[in-house]
Formats: sequence, C-alpha cells, structure tokens
Amino acid sequence: MRNLLLTIRFDGTAYHGWQVQENSITVQQTLQDAYERICGARDNITGCSRTDSGVHANKYCCNIRTENNKACSELLSSLNAVLPQDIAVTDCSEVPYDFHARYDCISKEYIYQIWNSPEKNPFLSKYSLHYKYPLDTDMLDRQAKDFIGTHDFAAFCASGSSVDETVRTVTKAQVTRDGSLVTFTVAADGFLYNMVRIMVGTLLEIASGKIPQGTIPDIISSKDRGRAGITAKPHGLFLNDVIYGKG
Amino acid sequence: MRNLLLTIRFDGTAYHGWQVQENSITVQQTLQDAYERICGARDNITGCSRTDSGVHANKYCCNIRTENNKACSELLSSLNAVLPQDIAVTDCSEVPYDFHARYDCISKEYIYQIWNSPEKNPFLSKYSLHYKYPLDTDMLDRQAKDFIGTHDFAAFCASGSSVDETVRTVTKAQVTRDGSLVTFTVAADGFLYNMVRIMVGTLLEIASGKIPQGTIPDIISSKDRGRAGITAKPHGLFLNDVIYGKG
Repeated sequence: MRNLLLTIRFDGTAYHGWQVQENSITVQQTLQDAYERICGARDNITGCSRTDSGVHANKYCCNIRTENNKACSELLSSLNAVLPQDIAVTDCSEVPYDFHARYDCISKEYIYQIWNSPEKNPFLSKYSLHYKYPLDTDMLDRQAKDFIGTHDFAAFCASGSSVDETVRTVTKAQVTRDGSLVTFTVAADGFLYNMVRIMVGTLLEIASGKIPQGTIPDIISSKDRGRAGITAKPHGLFLNDVIYGKG
Repeated sequence: MRNLLLTIRFDGTAYHGWQVQENSITVQQTLQDAYERICGARDNITGCSRTDSGVHANKYCCNIRTENNKACSELLSSLNAVLPQDIAVTDCSEVPYDFHARYDCISKEYIYQIWNSPEKNPFLSKYSLHYKYPLDTDMLDRQAKDFIGTHDFAAFCASGSSVDETVRTVTKAQVTRDGSLVTFTVAADGFLYNMVRIMVGTLLEIASGKIPQGTIPDIISSKDRGRAGITAKPHGLFLNDVIYGKG
C-alpha cells in the first residue's frame, strides 16, 4: 500500500465541482473513473478542497492510497490519455503514507478574473466575469489590503454554512490589471465557503459605490454576511496554488 | 439603404464555420438571427471569408446592406446583448454602399496555435493543437520563410477545391514561441481552401523529420498536394486580422 500525490489542472466549466455527488458529473468522479480504468481498482481520491460548480483550477492537489504499483511516470501519462481534455494531471509522486491532501495543506491561493471592458471577450467568457464599467484597480487594490491579517471572516461566509470556526489568516490580497483583464489574488491558510466570491462581490460593490470605500474592516468586524457584497459568479474563480508544509 | 461594416470576434468551437448551411449552426446564421431580432428584417450579412468548423476569429469582418437606421453604437450594444457569449461585435460603422467585405479585402492574417508540451493544457485544448514532442521554433521559423512571396500554392490547397487560380502572395510567415505556446503567423492577399492548416501540417512533418528541411520550395513548385503535409486540425486556427484598401 502506498500513497500518491496527484497534481491536476482543470477547466471546471463542465463539472459540478470537485466532490462526488449523485446525478452530476464531478472532477473527483471523472478522475476516479480514469484511475479505475487504468488500475482496475476504485481507490478513493482525497482532494485538497471542495470547489463549486464551474470553478477552475490551475493547480489542485489530491492523494490516493492504493495497492497499485505502476511507476508514477506511467500513471501520469496513462491518466492523461484516458482523462478528457479539460482535466490534466501535471504531476504524480509518491508521498508518505500519512500525507493527506486536505489536512496537510497550509496555504491556498485563489485568483478571480474580471474581464473589464465594454466589449465581451468570447475566449474568456467561461474564465472571467464580464464587468463593463471602468474599475479603478489601484483603489480596489488598496481596499483588498484590508483583508490581510487574522480575522473572523464570518461576514464573508455563505449563510447556512455549517463551519464552526470562521477565523482565517489572509496573507496576500491584491488587485492587478493586465490590459482589460483585472485579477484579484488572495492567499490564506484556509477559506470559508464562498469566501473568495463574496470578497470579489464586495470589491465590485465598492467599485460601483454601493458599499463605501474603507469599510472592509467594519464589515469584517460586524461578522454579518448581510453587510458584505453579493457572491460573484463562480466562472471567474481559479484555485491557483496549494502549499504543503514539510510535514 | 445603407451599408454597415461589422467587426466581430468569435470562439468557433460550437459552430460549423461562418457560412449558413442546412441543419448546422453557423456564425453567419447566429449573427443574422440576432440582427433580425433587433431590427425586424432578415438582411443578408456578407462575410470576409468562409471559415471551417471549429476555427476561431480574433477579428472577422462582414457587411450588411440594410434599410435599418439605428445608430451604430446602439446596434453594437444591442447585438452584443442578444448574441451568445461566444460571439462579440467589437465595432460597427457605416461604409460606402459599394463596400464588400470579401472582394475589398486586400490582406488577411491567420495565426495557428500549438501547445508544445508533454502536458495537456485544459484551458487551451479548444484553442490550440497539442504537440507533445519538442519543436525547434528557430528551425521552423526559417522553414516558414520559404512560404513568403508570390507562388502557385496548389500543393497547399485541399484536393477537390473548385478554385481556378491558385497563385497567392504571402507577405508574412513566422513561427514564434511564448513559453509552451508556439504560434505560426501567416499573412497573404488571399488563402486557398485549407491553406494555413496544410502549411502547419507540413511544418510539423518537417519537425518530425518526415519531410526534409529545406523542401518547401520544391513542394510549392511541384503543385502536388500529395507532397505537402497533412491538414492540421481546425481548432488551433484563428483569423487574426483583415485589411481593407482605401477603396
């Protein structure tokens, strides 16, 4: 029995998120199906996090405890041959048996892409939110800095979420622009349900004037979901990096 | 009656090319449907060229002779509101009544994208050909230069094509690399059916050693389709620019 760490990249457009569910196609199920086809065994694959329907990943990690003894390089190429075009395995390596893709993760980074132009972009319509009105990215970057630090982010958690502990440490929060593409980047030791999408919705409501500039600290301390902005659509969101400790 | 020039951008994945055909969804039909919905009249839209199924356009031009007198800016935003996400109108302007999007075009530029990496790229799978083995882009760029000039490109025309005149003037042909993305760019006063895709297929067969380096001039002068390479898949191809004379 050994433990394998798979790093994957996926276009989430066609999937109902990572986690296996009944009657919906998910990334986890598609990966387990491919693994079973190659290895003949339905081993459970443990992901680093749930992702929402339509969310993408530049880097997503998962581990699989398996009796299979194929070489990692062979598994990598076989999985890529069997998987659909929208899921790629970018790395496969053996890790200590007790490694766990979710529990051992010490930091994750997400990006959220906004296509900021009066014109639609047919090639980014599945990978960015289209926002037609001018965005002051310097101002938004200054606002985003207020997310940094260890805070109770209850106001930035989808209502109805069952999580008990809502304190998280945000280590990076920035808004950058490359032509018409505006990117919000945020890294933290962990994220609450819909946290990044609510952060983006809040920044966009600051941009439109609906929420005043400088109020992110107040919204955080209110712990009131109603004070933050709407939940931005999922298709602009990418899990961008997953960091593990030396564990 | 006036004549409008529409510039559009489209992701061709879901379309059977530009030209209206029975039982298939095409870009022309989708655009005419949107126009009819807004203007109440089914005016014919004339495109700058046919495109194959799955081919994309960063810039595509078409003209429409119409009785409609809506302002261009209004038409532009109404069309974008009605069109699906994979087609965007980027410009709308009034042109002389005798302007013709196909006949008045003096030059077109195509790009063909190749994702050159052992790894798949889920986000470029519909917009590039995946080529796993190393490509020597400097060598390919030198080979591509042999396309430049006024030649009879019969060897680079799909067999069965009904065109009489196969002489074209290629003004630009280059192979460049940006990380793992290799791009073939070619501009000419006109293109034969499948010409760019056969050029790419030939360059890839030179890369793999199936066709010797330095033989593009011989292939051109043979006028023999059988001497050139295969027709590369359509999904890496983009119409990139369309140039009109002062006419």
